[in-house]
Amino acid sequence: MSTPAGPPVTVIVGAGLVGASIGHALSGVGWRVHLVDAVPSHAAVAAGLGAGTAEPADPAEVGLVVVAVPPRAIADVVGESLQTYPGATVTDVGSVKAGVLDALWDRPVDLTRYVGSHPMAGSHHSGPVTADGELFVDRTWVVTPHRKSSDAATARVVELVRACRARLVTLDVDDHDAAVARVSHLPHLVSVLMAGHLTNVPDEDLVLAGQGLRDVTRIAGGDPGLWQQIVRANSTAVLRELRQVAVSLDRLITAVETPADTALGLELERGVEGTHRIPGKHGAAPVPYEQVVVAIPDEPGALARLFGDVEAAGVNVEDVAIEHDASRQVGYLTLSVRPERAEGLAVAMRDGGWTVV
Amino acid sequence: MSTPAGPPVTVIVGAGLVGASIGHALSGVGWRVHLVDAVPSHAAVAAGLGAGTAEPADPAEVGLVVVAVPPRAIADVVGESLQTYPGATVTDVGSVKAGVLDALWDRPVDLTRYVGSHPMAGSHHSGPVTADGELFVDRTWVVTPHRKSSDAATARVVELVRACRARLVTLDVDDHDAAVARVSHLPHLVSVLMAGHLTNVPDEDLVLAGQGLRDVTRIAGGDPGLWQQIVRANSTAVLRELRQVAVSLDRLITAVETPADTALGLELERGVEGTHRIPGKHGAAPVPYEQVVVAIPDEPGALARLFGDVEAAGVNVEDVAIEHDASRQVGYLTLSVRPERAEGLAVAMRDGGWTVV
Repeated sequence: MSTPAGPPVTVIVGAGLVGASIGHALSGVGWRVHLVDAVPSHAAVAAGLGAGTAEPADPAEVGLVVVAVPPRAIADVVGESLQTYPGATVTDVGSVKAGVLDALWDRPVDLTRYVGSHPMAGSHHSGPVTADGELFVDRTWVVTPHRKSSDAATARVVELVRACRARLVTLDVDDHDAAVARVSHLPHLVSVLMAGHLTNVPDEDLVLAGQGLRDVTRIAGGDPGLWQQIVRANSTAVLRELRQVAVSLDRLITAVETPADTALGLELERGVEGTHRIPGKHGAAPVPYEQVVVAIPDEPGALARLFGDVEAAGVNVEDVAIEHDASRQVGYLTLSVRPERAEGLAVAMRDGGWTVV
Repeated sequence: MSTPAGPPVTVIVGAGLVGASIGHALSGVGWRVHLVDAVPSHAAVAAGLGAGTAEPADPAEVGLVVVAVPPRAIADVVGESLQTYPGATVTDVGSVKAGVLDALWDRPVDLTRYVGSHPMAGSHHSGPVTADGELFVDRTWVVTPHRKSSDAATARVVELVRACRARLVTLDVDDHDAAVARVSHLPHLVSVLMAGHLTNVPDEDLVLAGQGLRDVTRIAGGDPGLWQQIVRANSTAVLRELRQVAVSLDRLITAVETPADTALGLELERGVEGTHRIPGKHGAAPVPYEQVVVAIPDEPGALARLFGDVEAAGVNVEDVAIEHDASRQVGYLTLSVRPERAEGLAVAMRDGGWTVV
């Protein structure tokens, strides 16, 4: 394969959020980027915004192809790209990896030049977020070499990840798919299960709904078309997790059925333990922040005044959440701060005339 | 029973968050409130803060007893109160109602004077929130008369709800328990199920966790001791919902197993539909807000400056959420605003030097 000095001439297929953002990131560090999209005007718009050029590349010159198309089209586009660009490494940015490889394994394509990847960014901002070259900075980007991948191809995809300033994680294809099944696809389906259950709940019951129900069901509102493709693409790993959850659910039901307290208590404690295993902000171990809860009137400018007073108190707010209740005109703002700052913040807010609850 | 003019002399048993908050609310509108707690110093502290008096009441004078003790103690305390205060209406504030009534049904107590109730407030602020007479204002407070309840007793509990300025909802005991099983207890157990599953997930997989997993599992971190009592107290209704979820889970597993797309698509769409059934902020129908997402540096004062600029833009922020990623030093602040204000806010924020993504 051709290995010219300097960054490879790069073709990005698919000028959506992820593809165009990669184009911005690479163009920003001097890579030559050609954008291609099934809808040519999409490539032209992205190019106009600085993500690269919509002019066609000379196939012989292309050193890297990034396939950023919807999940169900990935394998075909990867296969075509391996044929169209005979000297290029080809990667994709899909959230599931094994299916692409399986689909290509017996085709007459040069799989030594294909290495899958998965930038963990953008998905929950897919609505409002437009392309942004900073999208991948310090985020995890998983690279998944397989046993036919050449070292040169893997190195080229690593070069892509580094150019986007993402944090490189290298995983075996199946390990990757098992991991996202557990931390992403299963939680989505569990949320769907709970939200779907609500379709059978009477309106008058839902009036009693609180923040907990809203949190558990939030991601179930995600695009069903996209999620169908994701779950289909990872169905083996997802089914393994779902079946384990079915066993756990049966055990939970038995625990609730059994009047002796211990089994149910163990289930509830296992849940608490599970929440503690999720890494905290910025990948660090969870910090036990303290919460200062301030009542906040539902009127323009209230949040600005409140944060102005927080700034005046000189306290770094680690996290913030607003809780509204279905029946209450006054919301609550929960400010998470380091434990040693909580008392001072509460005093400062009270001094500022806020109701600290 | 005695029905003196004016508000009844009231005894509150249990000076925790809910009991003491009721004490503050009633004392604030001139009711005579006596606080009792198994730990006398708790009653004294609450009294010292203005929730009433810790002096004992004359049993013959008491017109209302509010039982605000942990779930598993409620039935006994209600029974004892009916005997100790022969002229009083007795209510409780537990989150499950049928079990209390069942436990008392065949005891030699005057159940005409017992009417259960459930103020829907406080639970997810139980940590940082201390007693607050405003806790119930405009919140739902369910009153659950049963077939032995006298009209006078029900009227007295309604008087309590009105004095706390809560929003009265009257429900049959079993309807209440079925409703909270669906919108509160089941979501808690589903969250526990997902969080408990994480105890078997390797650390290296959890590095890939995002906001969705955090949302689904948040409430699973709730106090296992309290939740055990709640689930036990409502086990019949909870089991009915759990068994339905088990059936839905089997159906979902079959849908994922079946290569034809339609079944899985229907499951995912049912989930979306369910999220739309949850009433929005302040009980109104969900308003389709638009989100403006702003990148926010992780440094002191950034939020204050940001909200200062939002205020300068004159836009009312309907909701706000911060999303941190495990691997990224820059968070995102999602500002939800009325659709017609989104564009103007985005422009104003860009003008203020913020990165709107």
